[in-house]
Amino acid sequence: MQPPWEYRYAHRMQRMSSSAIRELLKLTELPDIISFAGGLPAPEVFPIKEFEESCNRVLSERGAQALQYGASEGYAPLREMIARHTGRYSVKVSSDNILITSGSQQALDFIGKLFINRGDYVVVESPTYLGALQAWNAYGAQYISVPSDEHGMRVEELEEALRVGPKFIYVLPNFQNPSGVTMSLERRKKLVLLADQYGVPIIEDDPYGQLRYDGENIPSVVYLDSRYRNDGDESGEYTGNVIYLSTFSKLLAPGLRLAWVIAPPQVIRKFVLAKQAADLHTSSFNQMVAYDVAKGGFLDEHVKTIRAVYKERRDVMLEMMDEVFPAEMHWTRPQGGMFLWGMLPEGVDASEVLKSAVEKKVAFVPGVAFHPNGGGKNTMRLNFSFSTPETIREGITRLGGTLKESFRQNGVHK
Amino acid sequence: MQPPWEYRYAHRMQRMSSSAIRELLKLTELPDIISFAGGLPAPEVFPIKEFEESCNRVLSERGAQALQYGASEGYAPLREMIARHTGRYSVKVSSDNILITSGSQQALDFIGKLFINRGDYVVVESPTYLGALQAWNAYGAQYISVPSDEHGMRVEELEEALRVGPKFIYVLPNFQNPSGVTMSLERRKKLVLLADQYGVPIIEDDPYGQLRYDGENIPSVVYLDSRYRNDGDESGEYTGNVIYLSTFSKLLAPGLRLAWVIAPPQVIRKFVLAKQAADLHTSSFNQMVAYDVAKGGFLDEHVKTIRAVYKERRDVMLEMMDEVFPAEMHWTRPQGGMFLWGMLPEGVDASEVLKSAVEKKVAFVPGVAFHPNGGGKNTMRLNFSFSTPETIREGITRLGGTLKESFRQNGVHK
Repeated sequence: MQPPWEYRYAHRMQRMSSSAIRELLKLTELPDIISFAGGLPAPEVFPIKEFEESCNRVLSERGAQALQYGASEGYAPLREMIARHTGRYSVKVSSDNILITSGSQQALDFIGKLFINRGDYVVVESPTYLGALQAWNAYGAQYISVPSDEHGMRVEELEEALRVGPKFIYVLPNFQNPSGVTMSLERRKKLVLLADQYGVPIIEDDPYGQLRYDGENIPSVVYLDSRYRNDGDESGEYTGNVIYLSTFSKLLAPGLRLAWVIAPPQVIRKFVLAKQAADLHTSSFNQMVAYDVAKGGFLDEHVKTIRAVYKERRDVMLEMMDEVFPAEMHWTRPQGGMFLWGMLPEGVDASEVLKSAVEKKVAFVPGVAFHPNGGGKNTMRLNFSFSTPETIREGITRLGGTLKESFRQNGVHK
Repeated sequence: MQPPWEYRYAHRMQRMSSSAIRELLKLTELPDIISFAGGLPAPEVFPIKEFEESCNRVLSERGAQALQYGASEGYAPLREMIARHTGRYSVKVSSDNILITSGSQQALDFIGKLFINRGDYVVVESPTYLGALQAWNAYGAQYISVPSDEHGMRVEELEEALRVGPKFIYVLPNFQNPSGVTMSLERRKKLVLLADQYGVPIIEDDPYGQLRYDGENIPSVVYLDSRYRNDGDESGEYTGNVIYLSTFSKLLAPGLRLAWVIAPPQVIRKFVLAKQAADLHTSSFNQMVAYDVAKGGFLDEHVKTIRAVYKERRDVMLEMMDEVFPAEMHWTRPQGGMFLWGMLPEGVDASEVLKSAVEKKVAFVPGVAFHPNGGGKNTMRLNFSFSTPETIREGITRLGGTLKESFRQNGVHK
C-alpha cells in the first residue's frame, strides 16, 4: 500500500500552490517563445571573466576557508563592504546591522518566520511582489492591500490599514516589481511618520535601487527613518523602524544567491537565529568570490554598464509599445528597474490574452498574480531586462497584434 | 524613541535561542584552544585544485547559465548523477525523487515547514542531532525521545511512542551525530515495519554513510522500505514511506552548501513549493561546479582519501582516550563518521567539566544540548575529523587531566 502522504502535511502547506510565475517560466524554455514573463537579468552583462579571476584568487589564497563552514551572519569583509557602501550613499550602519542571506527571497522567508503568527495582517502595495506573498502565505499571513498610483503606494489610504494592527508594512519604493513605479519623496516621508506613529515596522525591499536610468535619486525609506529619529550619529549603528533588503542578484549575478538585510542589531540577532535553523549560513565560497569581484571599485563601474544596457532595452520597449499597441492600452514608464506594467481596458482578461499571445510565441505575466486580495485581471507585467533590443522589437510587435485582436473580440477596439 | 521590537516577534521566535554549539564554536576561534566541539571536516582533504579547474571550466563553457537563476528542483545533471549513484548502492530512484537543498539543514527546515503544526509530536533518538531540534523548534514541535544504545534507537521502545500519533520518526542510522552509534540491520527492519504499521513516515538523515572505516555496510532504511514494499521495480521511482537526506558537505566541502533529499515524487513536489518560498533555488554556480568536480569517478576516489584520513584520527583519539582517560569514563567506538560520545559517571556535570577544560585550552560539546526532553548532563560529544593526529594527542591528554581532576572533586575518582 502507498503511504497516505496527502493527509500528513501541516496546515500551512495545504494553502501553498505552485507559483504562476514559476509555471510560466516553463514557457520561456520553449525554444521559439519570446518571453517578457521572467524576471531575469541579461546574461550578456554577467562579469564572467572577473568571476574566473576571483575564483582562482580565492581558491589559491584562501581555499580552505572558502570551502569550510562559515559564520551565520555572513563573511565579515563582505558585511563591512556593504556597511561602508550603505553609509556612503544612504543610512549610516555598522556590520552589526547586516546579515547575508541566500537571495532576498530568504530574507522574505525569515521576515515571515520572525513576525507572522497565523492570521496576522500585513500591509502591502497593490500590486505587490509575488515572491513576498509566497513566502508569507507559508506562515498564514493575511493581506491588507493599499492601492498604488504613478507615485507609489497611496499613503493617504495607509492610515486606515494601520488601524487594523498589521505586523508590518511592505513596500518596494524604487521601480517596483511588478509595476515599475517609484514612490515619491513626500510619500516616503509620510510613510515613515505614520509607521512610527502606529508602531508598525516597515520592510523596504530595494533590489533595483541602483538601476536608475533617468530622474533624480530619491532617499531610501531607511535613510529617512534614521533622519527622522536623529539616529546613528554617535553609535554609527542604525536602530530605527525599517528592515531594508537588497541583493547582488541584479548587480552581479543571481546564480550566486547572495543578498543582504539591514536592520537594527537586536533584529539582526533574531535573523541570525532564523538563519542557523534554516541553512546554517550562506555559501562561504560565493561570499568570498563576490567580495573579491566587487571590491576595489569594480562593482560601481559594472553597474554603469548594466544601466546602459537596460536603459536601451527599456527605451526600445516603450518606443515599440507607443508604435504598435492599441490606443485603449495604458502602461507605466519606469525610471529604472526591470519591469513595466500594462493596463488593459476594464473587462479584458489578461490571462485570456496570454493564451492567444503564447500561440503567437510571445509571453508575459498576467497581473492578477500580484494582487493577494483579487483584482488586477486586466493588468500585465512585462520584463525588459532579459531580451535583446531586436527580440524586444519582434516580441512587442507580436504582442501588439495579439492585443488588438483581443480588444476587437472584446468590443473595445475597432 | 526606539521602536519596541521585542513585542513584535511571532510566538515561534520567543522559543528560539542561540544554539549551544554555535556559541561554543566561538571558542574554536580563540587561537590556542584545541577544539573537539565543532563538527568541521578536515580542511586538509578539500580538493582545492579540482575546484579551481572546475570553476574555470564551468565559467568558460557555461558561464551565463552558472550565473543565472535556475530551477527550484536543482541542476538536472546533478540530480541525475545522484539518482544513478543512489540506484547503484541503495534504492532505485529517478530525478523526480530528488531535490537539491542548501545544505541538509535546509532540508530539515523544509521538513518542519511541510509537516509540523504547532504542538505536533516528533519521535527522535536520544541523544539526537541538535540542528534538527533547532529547525523544528521554529515550527513548535514537541519531542518524544526514544533511548539509544550501542545498536542505535531501541526500536522495541518505539511502538509506545508511535501510539501518541507523531508526525514522523527522525533517525540517523549511520555513525550518528552526536553518539557515533550505528543502528543494527535488525532494528532498521523493525523500524520500517512499525512505521508502516502505524502510518508514520521516517526521516533518515545520512550525512556520513559513505564515511565507514571498518565493519560491513548496512542497507539504508529507505532501501529496506522499498524492498519491504516491492517498490520501484517498474517505474524506477521510489514511492515509499521514507524521506532520505544526504549532503556534499562531508564528501566535497561544506562551504558550498549543497545537499539533497530523496523522497516520493509527490513529496518532492511539496518540497519544491517550500524551496520556491524559501530561497527560489540553490546556487546554480555551486551545483554546476560540484557536478563538474564529482563526475567521472573523482568523488568515489576522493572519499577513499577522506576515509583514510578520518580513520587515522579516530584511531588516534581512541588510543589516547584508552591511555589517559580515567577508568570511570566510558565512550563509544564509532565505525565511521566524525564524532564519538563520552559518558561520565552519574552526577558529574559535563558543562562544569567544560569550564575547567577551557581553562586548559581544550573544548568539547556537553551532551545535554542533544536531549530535547532533558537528561544527558553527564555526557559529551567529541569530534575527531577536524584536528590533526598531533593535535588530538595533545588535546586528549589535556582533557584526560581535566576529567581526572573533576572526577576527584566529585568523589568518583581516587
